[in-house]
Amino acid sequence: MTFLTDFGTKDGYVAQMKGVALSITDVQLVDITHDISPQNIYEGAFALRSTVSSFPVGTVHVAVVDPGVGTKRRGIIITTKDHILVGPDNGLLIPASRNLGNFAVYEITNKEYMRQTISPTFHGRDIFTPVAAHILEGVPFEEFGQMITDFAELDFGAAEITDKTAIGAILAMDHFGNVITNIDGDALKKALPYGKTITLVIGNKKRKILFLKAYNFVKKGQLLTTIGSSNLLEVGLNQGNVAQKLKIKPGDKVKIIFS
Amino acid sequence: MTFLTDFGTKDGYVAQMKGVALSITDVQLVDITHDISPQNIYEGAFALRSTVSSFPVGTVHVAVVDPGVGTKRRGIIITTKDHILVGPDNGLLIPASRNLGNFAVYEITNKEYMRQTISPTFHGRDIFTPVAAHILEGVPFEEFGQMITDFAELDFGAAEITDKTAIGAILAMDHFGNVITNIDGDALKKALPYGKTITLVIGNKKRKILFLKAYNFVKKGQLLTTIGSSNLLEVGLNQGNVAQKLKIKPGDKVKIIFS
Amino acid sequence: MTFLTDFGTKDGYVAQMKGVALSITDVQLVDITHDISPQNIYEGAFALRSTVSSFPVGTVHVAVVDPGVGTKRRGIIITTKDHILVGPDNGLLIPASRNLGNFAVYEITNKEYMRQTISPTFHGRDIFTPVAAHILEGVPFEEFGQMITDFAELDFGAAEITDKTAIGAILAMDHFGNVITNIDGDALKKALPYGKTITLVIGNKKRKILFLKAYNFVKKGQLLTTIGSSNLLEVGLNQGNVAQKLKIKPGDKVKIIFS
Repeated sequence: MTFLTDFGTKDGYVAQMKGVALSITDVQLVDITHDISPQNIYEGAFALRSTVSSFPVGTVHVAVVDPGVGTKRRGIIITTKDHILVGPDNGLLIPASRNLGNFAVYEITNKEYMRQTISPTFHGRDIFTPVAAHILEGVPFEEFGQMITDFAELDFGAAEITDKTAIGAILAMDHFGNVITNIDGDALKKALPYGKTITLVIGNKKRKILFLKAYNFVKKGQLLTTIGSSNLLEVGLNQGNVAQKLKIKPGDKVKIIFS
Repeated sequence: MTFLTDFGTKDGYVAQMKGVALSITDVQLVDITHDISPQNIYEGAFALRSTVSSFPVGTVHVAVVDPGVGTKRRGIIITTKDHILVGPDNGLLIPASRNLGNFAVYEITNKEYMRQTISPTFHGRDIFTPVAAHILEGVPFEEFGQMITDFAELDFGAAEITDKTAIGAILAMDHFGNVITNIDGDALKKALPYGKTITLVIGNKKRKILFLKAYNFVKKGQLLTTIGSSNLLEVGLNQGNVAQKLKIKPGDKVKIIFS
Repeated sequence: MTFLTDFGTKDGYVAQMKGVALSITDVQLVDITHDISPQNIYEGAFALRSTVSSFPVGTVHVAVVDPGVGTKRRGIIITTKDHILVGPDNGLLIPASRNLGNFAVYEITNKEYMRQTISPTFHGRDIFTPVAAHILEGVPFEEFGQMITDFAELDFGAAEITDKTAIGAILAMDHFGNVITNIDGDALKKALPYGKTITLVIGNKKRKILFLKAYNFVKKGQLLTTIGSSNLLEVGLNQGNVAQKLKIKPGDKVKIIFS
């Protein structure tokens, strides 16, 4: 079972979820991250989407970035081809599920699989984790509630790639300060060979940058673009923080001109 | 086995403890937190108390916030109704143990269950973790040392609830900046229905605030009071950091007037 | 299986490695640290060396601080007396391996044990972790590639201890701000009894400081030297941050005069 939250690791909230999980089922617990910016569903959805497919078939992923906790916001289970996701119905689980493919959404309504007392501020511990643990114990999905189709959507947008340009947006920046776009690596590589100089346009700024296979192909401190480990175009600075240097942030539009 | 420390996660100190545990017994290792402020026994005791009861019966919890390490400060095992705690005799384990109920304290003196070489600066690795692992391996408590009754105390104080006011103190602030008091949620709910406006008094400042079921019942950026997931009264700011905004800190007195 | 990286815990990169590991083998996964300063091989090597020997015989350690990822930098497996290490050939694994003893180095070349698609920016996920998991599954070391002797070296340097002085260097500072030298504790204790006042020389500054058995033997806020939990001489401040106060950093020369 994996956990992704915006709870931080200071308070023991995550450990409470893990204790609840282990009280129901004996399974290895893996943290995806708990450092999502508070209530940032978009950031959580991106981290979840980037990570879940690395896990074994049958893994159940609990994700909680949940500004609507305690209101009428529904809880959901999403089944996909190979994985199961559990969390709030606020879009958080959708990009990952769409990427995993073949997905169906169930509303969680059956109190039998929740903790006896449900805190209105902590559904991660009292609803999502026990539901996830009972899924691993073999409870069929229909037992938890009905299938729904009117779940909350979240879409990172699709980049446009032609034979002269790629137009997309910044999705995230990582721990190293590398900036990840929504421009698909496979599609880009068909239009643009490694080694070419491209023009990177963010805001009003145009920069000539090399498109290279890895960070270390430029000198320390030099800019480059590359296909990152999530198979998306990244803008980076070898051994430096490009997000800080270029003042780029998630949501910014980005344009690549192939020349 | 769980771990709570003030060691941070930068140095591998926690991993050394885990390596020692796995050398003795094969058990899943769960972090409660390692981000307790250095040497802050009070903060560690609160995090431990909030977390341990979520774990399965029979879990052994190792907690190390230990400014007295290497001096004559004793090491202790505390057995409670359903859980076992191991750590320094400085009050750290007491609020959790009192909350778990039915507790007895053993001094750790038997060197047979410690590591061969004991660093005067790292009893977490050399004494508490191997003792915890041997407990899981079935060694009886009396084997580690004698029962004692003169252990170090730590008390968060009890809040006073009448039909007009609740008077207590701030125990902690969490990752979201929500501020947790020692005012018991069950007792408060009997005296005060959700939806009422109360007067919150901290220091010289009086503020009229709603008492609500969840954070999302006010608009983003608005103050509220609610019963948090530890069943204690919290003061919060929907999607914001109340501790920063109101300059509240643990230890501050707090008074709630029901009108 | 343990993991040490400079990836941080924000992005899910570490979780991707864990997912890959669990897809190949069922083993408990333990974090050493992911907070190594970006691309700081020296810092990573010290944390790895301090930690691995606490783990059970047969543990496989994956370490990734890897500024050369995607270039011709080789990947290696190091077998030692009791442990196995996997990571980049940039010196990161060497101090730990030398300390563990009896070590041999294999270059990783056999693509059969790597992931099918290898990102040029993430060998931790696509090469080192699957190799580590296959080692645990019993694949013989020679299957991964040939033994080599021209691996990249990394040496923390040896301190010089006479009957009047110890001359060494600062290796690291820990979460508490304690400063760790490369002066061996056992050798020092032969030349210098606890309780003596020594002269500590760092840069042009000389300070008279006590050499004591534990931090708590001086008052809060006072300086001391002690043998830390890695059996190396440390300079500390009881319940304070000596690295900040004395402006010491890794690489600084340090001299101890025994009088």
